[in-house]
Amino acid sequence: MATRKKHAAFRAAFQGDPGAFSHKAAMDLLGPEVVVEPRQRFEDVFEALRDGDADAAVIPIENTLHGSVHENYDHLLQFDFRIVAETNVRIVHNLIAAPGVRFKDVKRAFSHPVALNQCLDFFKSNPQIQREPFYDTAGSVKMVMSEGLKDAAAIASAVSAEIYGAKILKRSIEDDRQNFTRFFLLRRVDQAPLVLNMQGKKGWKTSLVFTIRNQPGSLFKALSAFALRELSMIKIESRPLRGKPWEYLFYVDFLGNTDEERVQRALSHLQELADMLRVLGCYRV
Amino acid sequence: MATRKKHAAFRAAFQGDPGAFSHKAAMDLLGPEVVVEPRQRFEDVFEALRDGDADAAVIPIENTLHGSVHENYDHLLQFDFRIVAETNVRIVHNLIAAPGVRFKDVKRAFSHPVALNQCLDFFKSNPQIQREPFYDTAGSVKMVMSEGLKDAAAIASAVSAEIYGAKILKRSIEDDRQNFTRFFLLRRVDQAPLVLNMQGKKGWKTSLVFTIRNQPGSLFKALSAFALRELSMIKIESRPLRGKPWEYLFYVDFLGNTDEERVQRALSHLQELADMLRVLGCYRV
Repeated sequence: MATRKKHAAFRAAFQGDPGAFSHKAAMDLLGPEVVVEPRQRFEDVFEALRDGDADAAVIPIENTLHGSVHENYDHLLQFDFRIVAETNVRIVHNLIAAPGVRFKDVKRAFSHPVALNQCLDFFKSNPQIQREPFYDTAGSVKMVMSEGLKDAAAIASAVSAEIYGAKILKRSIEDDRQNFTRFFLLRRVDQAPLVLNMQGKKGWKTSLVFTIRNQPGSLFKALSAFALRELSMIKIESRPLRGKPWEYLFYVDFLGNTDEERVQRALSHLQELADMLRVLGCYRV
Repeated sequence: MATRKKHAAFRAAFQGDPGAFSHKAAMDLLGPEVVVEPRQRFEDVFEALRDGDADAAVIPIENTLHGSVHENYDHLLQFDFRIVAETNVRIVHNLIAAPGVRFKDVKRAFSHPVALNQCLDFFKSNPQIQREPFYDTAGSVKMVMSEGLKDAAAIASAVSAEIYGAKILKRSIEDDRQNFTRFFLLRRVDQAPLVLNMQGKKGWKTSLVFTIRNQPGSLFKALSAFALRELSMIKIESRPLRGKPWEYLFYVDFLGNTDEERVQRALSHLQELADMLRVLGCYRV
């Protein structure tokens, strides 16, 4: 309880309605009492942190089915924040309805189309339930509750059922259980370090972005900065720079702390080879 | 016209309704007369090609905002198809309504929530128009037309307006014009080579997938197979293998044709270092 209380008045901005999977990530990172600052767009989330309307931002950065969220990498380059922690959330979809509504009453299920499409086996086995597209997973729970629907349910996170006082009729109705989203916790550079729950975390990870001109072997040379110092790369991804043919942006995560001498040498070696290099953060894993 | 006629009875499977951006990609690759085999899920698209219900499959593989479609890379590994061509489609959203409906009549706009969220500037400047989430971009045009809605519009591709006999009220209302999706054209190994329009295409690209165990420097060694032969890498992306900690899948695209000797040497060098290596295709760029 002591660590939770520390963050009791702590405001986290994220994209989506309360109960969204980003909210779940914020709770995992900052404790269940985190104060939510929901925003419509990712850009609004970054602006909330910049303008001091939030004490931290929680953003999805990659998903096991859908890949990296390039848009958020773009915002990370545009705003000068630090990644201070990461968490992985398993995307579990639940059938959620107002208290008193029974499974056999449910004729319609509202949710974001992406979530509906991740529960096709459920709909195949329950052809009496009509799929109804809605804005947002958590928002569909909010709507089903506020409209007092008796023949409808929503598909969303367990957290959203709790928040809106709804009941879970069926847990984990998603087709694929290997659906995880990785979230970053962001803070401004001028903010004091956070005390976070680091249970089970022993190592450090550093995330960075760099650009190099595309010449044969240029990436190979850049990666030598890590390989020659036996630093383990955890992620690498290239992205063409639009409007700059043959220039590439690379996202790299490796195991190590920027306080270590070999990491500092690797970064200064990479700096020699890259046109642009930005360390986005160094955090526990 | 000669090249178009060749593919007149050619059936292409894709995910989504006719008029979806995948349909646009199919038309770019195979000509406007391509016969559509729309499917609900990506997996269904692969199965249609496997079972001979389609002559080719068109799948999105990456988007400039949303990253790689990992799910389709998974299917590429599971099904033994070949990538025979690629195309990039700019994601242009248009406001589309039934003939006779004027812009000032429009009170509601239906579309997939992802598309609605990519037109927020438009909705900010037109607060009289309510956003209405729907299943699918092209499907919303179909619905607006079949229901004969007089106060509503859909947001979708120009192709979908044409298909359903609807009218474009406003073109290109998306916030970000740098939104492109890259599509692959797939064929079975047992099918004859296709004659495709290769205007303006001079080079070759090869796409492959490999796995290596995560030891410091293992990726660096793997990339030496390309760097030592001065082969230009166009894309590299790592993906952790779920259930196999510390093993990674890599997607690589490089410029070159598998007929070239230096490419064959690079592949046999990479084969030595990788636990698994699969060439997904070699196609014009």
